[in-house]
Amino acid sequence: MTLKSILPILDWGSRYDRYALTRDIVAAVVVTVMLIPQSLAYALLAGLPPEIGLYASILPLVAYAVFGTSSALAVGPVAVVSLMSAAAIGSIVAQGSADYVSASVMLALMSGVILLAMGLFRLGFIANFLSHPVISGFITASAIIIATSQLGGLLGIEAAGHTMPQLLMSLANNIATVNWHTAAVGGASLALLVWMRFGLKNLLLRFGLSASAAAIATRVGPILVIVLAMAWSVALGLGSQGVALVAHVPQGLPVPSLPSLDLDILRQLFVPALIISVVGFVESVSVAQTLAAKRRERIVPNQELIALGASNIASAIGGGYSVTGGFARSVVNFDAGAATPAAGAFTAVGIALATLFLAPFLAVLPKATLAATILVAVMTLVDFSSLKRTWVYSRADFAAVVVSLAGTLLLGVEIGIVLGVATSTLVFLYRSSVPHAAIVGQVPGTEHYRNIKRHQVETVPGIVSIRVDESLYFANARYLEDLIVNQVMSSPGITDVVLMCSAVNAIDMSALESLEAIAQRLHDMGVCLHVSEVKGPVMDKLQRTSLPRHLDGIHLSQHQAMCTIMAGRQSG
Amino acid sequence: MTLKSILPILDWGSRYDRYALTRDIVAAVVVTVMLIPQSLAYALLAGLPPEIGLYASILPLVAYAVFGTSSALAVGPVAVVSLMSAAAIGSIVAQGSADYVSASVMLALMSGVILLAMGLFRLGFIANFLSHPVISGFITASAIIIATSQLGGLLGIEAAGHTMPQLLMSLANNIATVNWHTAAVGGASLALLVWMRFGLKNLLLRFGLSASAAAIATRVGPILVIVLAMAWSVALGLGSQGVALVAHVPQGLPVPSLPSLDLDILRQLFVPALIISVVGFVESVSVAQTLAAKRRERIVPNQELIALGASNIASAIGGGYSVTGGFARSVVNFDAGAATPAAGAFTAVGIALATLFLAPFLAVLPKATLAATILVAVMTLVDFSSLKRTWVYSRADFAAVVVSLAGTLLLGVEIGIVLGVATSTLVFLYRSSVPHAAIVGQVPGTEHYRNIKRHQVETVPGIVSIRVDESLYFANARYLEDLIVNQVMSSPGITDVVLMCSAVNAIDMSALESLEAIAQRLHDMGVCLHVSEVKGPVMDKLQRTSLPRHLDGIHLSQHQAMCTIMAGRQSG
Repeated sequence: MTLKSILPILDWGSRYDRYALTRDIVAAVVVTVMLIPQSLAYALLAGLPPEIGLYASILPLVAYAVFGTSSALAVGPVAVVSLMSAAAIGSIVAQGSADYVSASVMLALMSGVILLAMGLFRLGFIANFLSHPVISGFITASAIIIATSQLGGLLGIEAAGHTMPQLLMSLANNIATVNWHTAAVGGASLALLVWMRFGLKNLLLRFGLSASAAAIATRVGPILVIVLAMAWSVALGLGSQGVALVAHVPQGLPVPSLPSLDLDILRQLFVPALIISVVGFVESVSVAQTLAAKRRERIVPNQELIALGASNIASAIGGGYSVTGGFARSVVNFDAGAATPAAGAFTAVGIALATLFLAPFLAVLPKATLAATILVAVMTLVDFSSLKRTWVYSRADFAAVVVSLAGTLLLGVEIGIVLGVATSTLVFLYRSSVPHAAIVGQVPGTEHYRNIKRHQVETVPGIVSIRVDESLYFANARYLEDLIVNQVMSSPGITDVVLMCSAVNAIDMSALESLEAIAQRLHDMGVCLHVSEVKGPVMDKLQRTSLPRHLDGIHLSQHQAMCTIMAGRQSG
Repeated sequence: MTLKSILPILDWGSRYDRYALTRDIVAAVVVTVMLIPQSLAYALLAGLPPEIGLYASILPLVAYAVFGTSSALAVGPVAVVSLMSAAAIGSIVAQGSADYVSASVMLALMSGVILLAMGLFRLGFIANFLSHPVISGFITASAIIIATSQLGGLLGIEAAGHTMPQLLMSLANNIATVNWHTAAVGGASLALLVWMRFGLKNLLLRFGLSASAAAIATRVGPILVIVLAMAWSVALGLGSQGVALVAHVPQGLPVPSLPSLDLDILRQLFVPALIISVVGFVESVSVAQTLAAKRRERIVPNQELIALGASNIASAIGGGYSVTGGFARSVVNFDAGAATPAAGAFTAVGIALATLFLAPFLAVLPKATLAATILVAVMTLVDFSSLKRTWVYSRADFAAVVVSLAGTLLLGVEIGIVLGVATSTLVFLYRSSVPHAAIVGQVPGTEHYRNIKRHQVETVPGIVSIRVDESLYFANARYLEDLIVNQVMSSPGITDVVLMCSAVNAIDMSALESLEAIAQRLHDMGVCLHVSEVKGPVMDKLQRTSLPRHLDGIHLSQHQAMCTIMAGRQSG
């Protein structure tokens, strides 16, 4: 671990030049304009005052610029993590209270410490347990929950809860209290945002803009919607019509400070913080890797853990909440030409300036416009196509998608993801506990041995050769015992069993002891046990055990095993 | 599922003859004599009145005779399950109360229903999660806890608790209250039992007895110790000296009845009942399989689940507690010549007669003698050799032994076994998440491709061939991404990557999507991705996906892949 590997800024910083500076500043301006409405909106989604979203878009970006390995990743508040933060905090503190804000800040701090620890202790493999089907089901379900919750904000009615049944019940109960002014400004914002996302791009392309310029323009468009909504709000005096406005936003920046530690809340937030950390990391690193490959750059996952950890700790110190790398804004950052992580630091300066100078104007912004911003942002996260693809490919993976999707929708984000991980793990263990196995015979005229059910092969009476296509370990050790002993029991006259290990990548202690038990049981029946084609690393380990003494033969190849057994018969 | 497969008694019963009858009766007499002291002692270990142990040795044996597939397995109360029962019940009901007895009976009923359900729904694979190292650590720790708890009974002092810290604390606090009469009769019983176990056998062998006759004699010896202890107790009036006696044992047999169901206790006992069921099944079926192989008989694990389920339900109906197949008594049953499961039914008759006629005499038996019986019985369960063997073979399996051993000793049986299972599963997943992988090259003059680190091989500049020795699934999907992309990043000038899949037994959805991402990232870098030697069943599944369209080549053999790439270069 060199200083340069912990502080990538020392590497790219030493080569920084005017050319990179120009590119980074241009990208920073674009990302800043895109990030302002998103920061405000996601903070509302997290149940927080909107300015907390801006705070979460300042120091974390500087921290990532110092520690991150991706030149394009843009960190800050994102939709799914905001929802998870709201679900975690909402279950222990009442929303709207000062405790709610400080618990959110504490959650970011814990998440930061967890990520940092995972990076320093090389625990990034924990993220491997989040399989793609689980993430896919979880993200789709989260997006549906977010969209449903924002319907309330769009119509000016309350939508309480963090699961679909709660949200739908709440919407149904309050549907009569729709504020039509809110619905009008919300609906108009939504329509304009949708048009910007889908219609504007084509228009700009027709006007001769390049594809990437058009993509950038559609991404910064939402700031225009914010400005129009503010104008509408002032012109019609929406505040006196019962429309929820952002209202008072404190001026100036918060003084950096450490959140006060409450041990009880700390304990309750540990599991949520762990889950948020892992989900945030998985999403962020996959964006970073996709973009890095386009420039033949290298992402170091363990360093990314450190960088995201530092970003979250910085967020907590600066009065923000949980952050991670965002997909859309990173793509915009990349397309706008960001050359180094410095682009993020410049974005931080932009957001800080915006916080200082925009605050007075934001008071008149209808919250419904922010709800529309969230709705449009999460629409693209809903992906049912993976359900179909997974169904076609594998019922086991399909089960994992469905459990995480349904679990998240019905029982909430934390339970949903835990159930998904449990399902994918159990399904994997179950499948490897009943491995594919084949009786093999010789392909005539060759030294090849193949499945007797798939090929025309020859077998020798009294000798049965079994190939197991799986590593041997505790989950299939007993299956192996049953398989071999039953094979011998069901065909009288067997004198030799050959276990062909060409597909066995590992043998654990349970399987080793099962093999000894199998050898012993076969001996009790007067049958010999041989193994063939054991791989080098596996054989190295077996040599240290007493198994070779229990076996009647260890043969380099299956053909050699057959020849040796038949030679022994003739001489015997 | 035929009636004969559900009721194996229909099979062997139809061939039952006088020869089998004689052998079964002889075995039954031997096992009865061995089982009486054990039944009494294990009931005490489970925190129950001693007669409950006798009740648990009647109906369960009849049930097993009807449903079981092993001709030698002897079911009844066993040490480890008794300890687990005590730990489960002790945490929710006060020991010594009537509720304690009824909760123990209920636990047996629940365990029976769980085992029956596992058998009927073919859920026996659940038992696969108990790896050998976990069982080994757990059994050793349980035996140490049992032995420590019986030290109290041996000395006439209280030893409360179900973990080592609790037991040692309790013994230390009460050491001053030792009753020297109890210690004398306990110590003498222990000495005589140990001599019978180790000295008597040699003596009998010297007197010309056969090895198996001597083994049987040493096993029925303990009944003599019981008789001697009763005589001592009467002669010296131990009851009035403060020695704890078995005291009142109700005469007659209990009327079969169903325990009253208490939903709250049912809920609290579910997890313990599940763990006890699985542990009991694993221990029992491995004894049955070992003995069956010696006679070339066949054990059907799913039917064993049904048989053990029926035995536990029968135990509950007959006023007994949790039972399973015992190792020592099954070996004795086998050695004494038991020909069919009918031997168990005859043993049940023997125990029923003993319950009717011995009850009045048992009142004077010192409990210290029963404690000595338990101590001697569990001594052989302590096996530290597996610690050493596991350490030599695999650090991962060693971790599982240590965690289940230490967890059981320090935190109790349930937590210990759960921690053990979690450790072995996590360790397995961790290991397969960082699979063995090798860069391969051509063995000169052959079509074989081997690890460049182990063999003298030739490689082609610009082409890198990577062999991964593991199925590709969610836990190693990200590892694969890093492996391949880093390989390309670290050697400039690479134009083609060949992923050699000869050791890949399966590819799940996560790995499939990772392969697509890898192909995309390599394309972004101007590198082609090929695969070779994909197994038949794996290829069948991949054909249904879009992966083949992302790949630049799918080659039957690694050699063919190399030839095709080089031919393409020359033509290109």
